[in-house]
Amino acid sequence: MVFDKFDGYLAAIETEMRRSFAVSAKELAPYYGMISYHLGWVDQSFCPSEQRPGKRLRPVLCLLSCEACGGDWGQAVPAAATLELLHNFSLIHDDIEDGSPQRRHRPTVWSLWGEAQAINVGDGLFAISRLALQRLSERGVSPEKIVRAFRYVDETCLQLTEGQYLDLAFEEQERVTVDMYTEMIGKKTAALMACSTQLGALLATDDEFVIDSYRSFGYQLGLLFQIVDDMLGIWGSSEATGKGVGEDIISKKKSLPVLYALQQSDELRDIYRQESMDAEQQQIVMERLESLSARQYAEEMAARYLELALDTLENTRIQNQAHENLRKIAHFLVERQH
Amino acid sequence: MVFDKFDGYLAAIETEMRRSFAVSAKELAPYYGMISYHLGWVDQSFCPSEQRPGKRLRPVLCLLSCEACGGDWGQAVPAAATLELLHNFSLIHDDIEDGSPQRRHRPTVWSLWGEAQAINVGDGLFAISRLALQRLSERGVSPEKIVRAFRYVDETCLQLTEGQYLDLAFEEQERVTVDMYTEMIGKKTAALMACSTQLGALLATDDEFVIDSYRSFGYQLGLLFQIVDDMLGIWGSSEATGKGVGEDIISKKKSLPVLYALQQSDELRDIYRQESMDAEQQQIVMERLESLSARQYAEEMAARYLELALDTLENTRIQNQAHENLRKIAHFLVERQH
Repeated sequence: MVFDKFDGYLAAIETEMRRSFAVSAKELAPYYGMISYHLGWVDQSFCPSEQRPGKRLRPVLCLLSCEACGGDWGQAVPAAATLELLHNFSLIHDDIEDGSPQRRHRPTVWSLWGEAQAINVGDGLFAISRLALQRLSERGVSPEKIVRAFRYVDETCLQLTEGQYLDLAFEEQERVTVDMYTEMIGKKTAALMACSTQLGALLATDDEFVIDSYRSFGYQLGLLFQIVDDMLGIWGSSEATGKGVGEDIISKKKSLPVLYALQQSDELRDIYRQESMDAEQQQIVMERLESLSARQYAEEMAARYLELALDTLENTRIQNQAHENLRKIAHFLVERQH
Repeated sequence: MVFDKFDGYLAAIETEMRRSFAVSAKELAPYYGMISYHLGWVDQSFCPSEQRPGKRLRPVLCLLSCEACGGDWGQAVPAAATLELLHNFSLIHDDIEDGSPQRRHRPTVWSLWGEAQAINVGDGLFAISRLALQRLSERGVSPEKIVRAFRYVDETCLQLTEGQYLDLAFEEQERVTVDMYTEMIGKKTAALMACSTQLGALLATDDEFVIDSYRSFGYQLGLLFQIVDDMLGIWGSSEATGKGVGEDIISKKKSLPVLYALQQSDELRDIYRQESMDAEQQQIVMERLESLSARQYAEEMAARYLELALDTLENTRIQNQAHENLRKIAHFLVERQH
């Protein structure tokens, strides 16, 4: 896996994330325990666990972007931690909103400790993610850049919630176009990836063209990431994705292959109009997706965003190892199986 | 009411808060509509409403503190807006966590649009509150001070969630001492008031003693505010508070008068150990609170924090009209009926 090369990055990200949880009063131990559980550091009894961490994709993108733009990636580590913590805050709340009982093969926070605690744990992690960004000053980043970093982060958070609103609203809407879908995933998924590459570039350079280009690159990467995610949610192996087989079909998620097929099939629209879906209908949906080449459509769209992302990167005329690694990550994200 | 004098402040706060909602795409109108509903600007059909706004206590404290410390209060208006927006984010989530159907005599966001949307609307307002703080730079505040303002705000948010965790945990605990209670309200209520007066002082002066003193003043004010709130939750008129009569008793809230009485009565502890409380038991609780002088105990505690708060203010040796108004607000908060 392409990320194995980044051991130095990953260790620094992990150390920086853990700094946010250095001390806490005894009576608050279960509170920070719940956050640490979500981050994979402890089990549900708050004992240290060997849980495999997430891919840390966003922080790695941030550090690589910083290095590619000629910066010292060490300076960007607090920003990288912020991105991962922020991503995890949004997962805790998404799991409640979607009623998901499992995440990364473990029970979700709300399913263990109830919705009230889980909402609050998410809010705490939201605040913690920003406090990590304060530590940029320890690494010699100027206050001007820190204020700008806060702006990027907060604009991104607002977009995340706008995207989540659209996603929740789509559940009630019969007609969701590809444009509407692209706007939704642009906010819900791509905005945070765009913020990751943009922050990395910001901390390395004052060249606004480069900062903008890196932002666009991250955005396009985010779009293709979500489209591949949609495909894995339908055709991926449950063991690899950590989701139940056909979960995205049964839950009638308006993912790209589905909404593409819905536009062309009255039969599918009838099925999606009903309250719930039985096994036979699920089978029909899978067959229609096949006969309408919905998978091929999504694959082509992902390939188009890959090309766009690589072009955006090329136009900066930067050439170095970190830049090359970013290209490899882009390819990997299209080819991944989970 | 003491706040009637602050029309200039209130108009500036309102304008600044609304700047955060200036434009949005058509498809996001219902999203921003839900936030605007919570803020009292529109009704549940998203039509402009004449809803009386909240007291805006925190932003007023911020602007007064700025003026008292010799600053230009106009510079602090974005910080004031941040505080009010932040306070409202926490109310949206608290209402879900507590299952409260009503707030300010109207249905709560979750009870109208469901928990998923309400969690997300709260998250959005959390991000919006911080974007308002960015606008300090338009008013000539230095990046150094803006970074520090972000730190105060994020540390406060983390404390809010710690306090909320303790509050939720107290529901399950039989023995809650006055010290534990004070720590909880210190985080859940007083921290945000402390942040309000501290931010105002920060934007006016570089004198660390004054900034610290204003923080302490706000903290003590917050403690007395919550203690009075606890008393109003038991003995206040429902019309004035917007809560149902005896709501805090029926819900077995561990407010100060109750936990003081619980320490001294086996009978009360038996009642609070049960799943729910009937009308007769509610009557017994009210009688025991009376016979054990629980109200007097809480009143004396509020009076002690008032004295402490006024002393803290006095020790800064500042004397001006804004300072005098802060004293008046402190007195008002003890005497208020809602």
